[in-house]
Amino acid sequence: MSNEPRVCDIGEFGLLGRIREILGYHSQEILIGIGDDAAVIQPRTQPVVLSTDAMVEGIHFRKSWTSASDLAYKAMASNLSDLAAKCAEPAYSLITLGLPGATPISWVEEFYNALVGMKDEWGIEVVGGDTVRSETLVVSITVWGYQTTSSPVSQRTARPGDRILVTGTLGDAAAGLELLEGGVVPAVQDSDRHFLIYRFLKPTPRVREAMAIARTALPTAMTDISDGAARDVPKLCEASRVGAVLYGDRFPCSAALREFAAGRAAAYAWKGGEDYELLFTLPPDKADFLLSGWNIPECPLTVIGEIVEKSRGVKIEHWDGEPETGFDHFRDH
Amino acid sequence: MSNEPRVCDIGEFGLLGRIREILGYHSQEILIGIGDDAAVIQPRTQPVVLSTDAMVEGIHFRKSWTSASDLAYKAMASNLSDLAAKCAEPAYSLITLGLPGATPISWVEEFYNALVGMKDEWGIEVVGGDTVRSETLVVSITVWGYQTTSSPVSQRTARPGDRILVTGTLGDAAAGLELLEGGVVPAVQDSDRHFLIYRFLKPTPRVREAMAIARTALPTAMTDISDGAARDVPKLCEASRVGAVLYGDRFPCSAALREFAAGRAAAYAWKGGEDYELLFTLPPDKADFLLSGWNIPECPLTVIGEIVEKSRGVKIEHWDGEPETGFDHFRDH
Repeated sequence: MSNEPRVCDIGEFGLLGRIREILGYHSQEILIGIGDDAAVIQPRTQPVVLSTDAMVEGIHFRKSWTSASDLAYKAMASNLSDLAAKCAEPAYSLITLGLPGATPISWVEEFYNALVGMKDEWGIEVVGGDTVRSETLVVSITVWGYQTTSSPVSQRTARPGDRILVTGTLGDAAAGLELLEGGVVPAVQDSDRHFLIYRFLKPTPRVREAMAIARTALPTAMTDISDGAARDVPKLCEASRVGAVLYGDRFPCSAALREFAAGRAAAYAWKGGEDYELLFTLPPDKADFLLSGWNIPECPLTVIGEIVEKSRGVKIEHWDGEPETGFDHFRDH
Repeated sequence: MSNEPRVCDIGEFGLLGRIREILGYHSQEILIGIGDDAAVIQPRTQPVVLSTDAMVEGIHFRKSWTSASDLAYKAMASNLSDLAAKCAEPAYSLITLGLPGATPISWVEEFYNALVGMKDEWGIEVVGGDTVRSETLVVSITVWGYQTTSSPVSQRTARPGDRILVTGTLGDAAAGLELLEGGVVPAVQDSDRHFLIYRFLKPTPRVREAMAIARTALPTAMTDISDGAARDVPKLCEASRVGAVLYGDRFPCSAALREFAAGRAAAYAWKGGEDYELLFTLPPDKADFLLSGWNIPECPLTVIGEIVEKSRGVKIEHWDGEPETGFDHFRDH
């Protein structure tokens, strides 16, 4: 590593040259892309969905666990997940990277190459960004998507009587983080633990699932589970001024999580953050209709509760564990 | 300070509540604003100009020099300057703040209150963002503006024969930084040094000037001077595949800079970064027309050179100093 060219060897302009070589731009809507003071985009007529999400070394990731391409993937995935929570189609992104001067150029190249790969996979194109020097590695991404629904999807409009649904399985990422913190090195051979670790390191944003949901039924409210259901369910309820009853025995848990957590799988599912699954509400008939026609077998949909009047608060039934809260980066350290 | 409530005392959700109280949103184009997973905006029909710019503690600013409100102002100003370089009208912003847990809540409140103030001053409205924990204070801002010109303004289209113009005066911020690094405390009474220091701490983005320029003449190329003319002129020339002759005796320098730098004012003007003045090119007749009708006396326009064929490179005439380069955050530490 010591003879490898570093960011400080080629300087900011040299680095920008490399980044531009890797990126390039193509969409007709992009009038000016990478390499100018700002990007210029001719927007479509639909509403634009904008979100931003940052990851900081030592807080959200450790370099020893996370390759440059995994970091690019996860930082973008957490942003795409916010677009998915609005049933939006991904389009553009701006990438800010804070880098120590001693970062190898090859690391930066791997990072941007991974972003190029996400253009094919998720339809998200880098149109700009900033690279700055920083002792701590920081990635801050802003994404632009297009609303695909007839009206905006919000957290604020869940109604009593609605069913609460989630995509995929919950709690896997929390278990994966615990494995990493315990020193487990992900190995493909050990398929259960590898699965859990990669659910943490490389979560799949539920963009396709959001599109499929929106095509069948407009969610009354929706969010993504980034801080854990234990935080994101009350947050959605507060925004909508409603309460919720959760079915503690119906939280969707993967076989790998059940194996890992034994009897505590539901607690991981409730408390664990960073799964980036979608949590949304629908009236019962629309929920049934969506479930009956659902054809993405690798990502099941599960009803985990129902919306009730605000006065009833947020309660879990059929639950033998202690109600726990999700993760707060400012406090839980 | 020690008894003051800190970010880690109220946690992420408590902090978000405070930020939402301060911000709020109003524009009719904003369908969903602060406090949801993403903002939803109904765009106008004009092209959208997007830019992002980050500032890192210890690299771009020091907390001992920079109040929360000055930091908010400067971080936003550097972004607004990128919009100005595209003759764009500011509209929306997303603010990512990386904060140590021990940051006083009052600091965060002052920061967001300053951003609210910039809505009235610059027409820029906060529609979203992210707050994350970080040992180092980091501000990353993304801005959205609307193109006001008939076609996009780029760095790439300067033509031989064009005049090179700049707004305002150059080199002040570099002198201000030198004063701060020398331990000078800004005092209003000492008007020259106060002026130079505040040109560094609180630069004025040339948004109004850009609008005034665009109303009279569409620049053939434009950029803002953030890294110093010595870097930004060659960058614009490279993007446009042209050369430039600069008139070293015509760099606009403030009286305060002349007093501070004595015979070296032109060197500060050429090398100094962070003035956030606009640098742009126009054919001679259009430059003359613009200059003759210019009515913003507090921000003069000056012709500092002309665009020539690429083969002639970038040269300074009437210059007795050593050609020097601008500042590179990755290398110059």
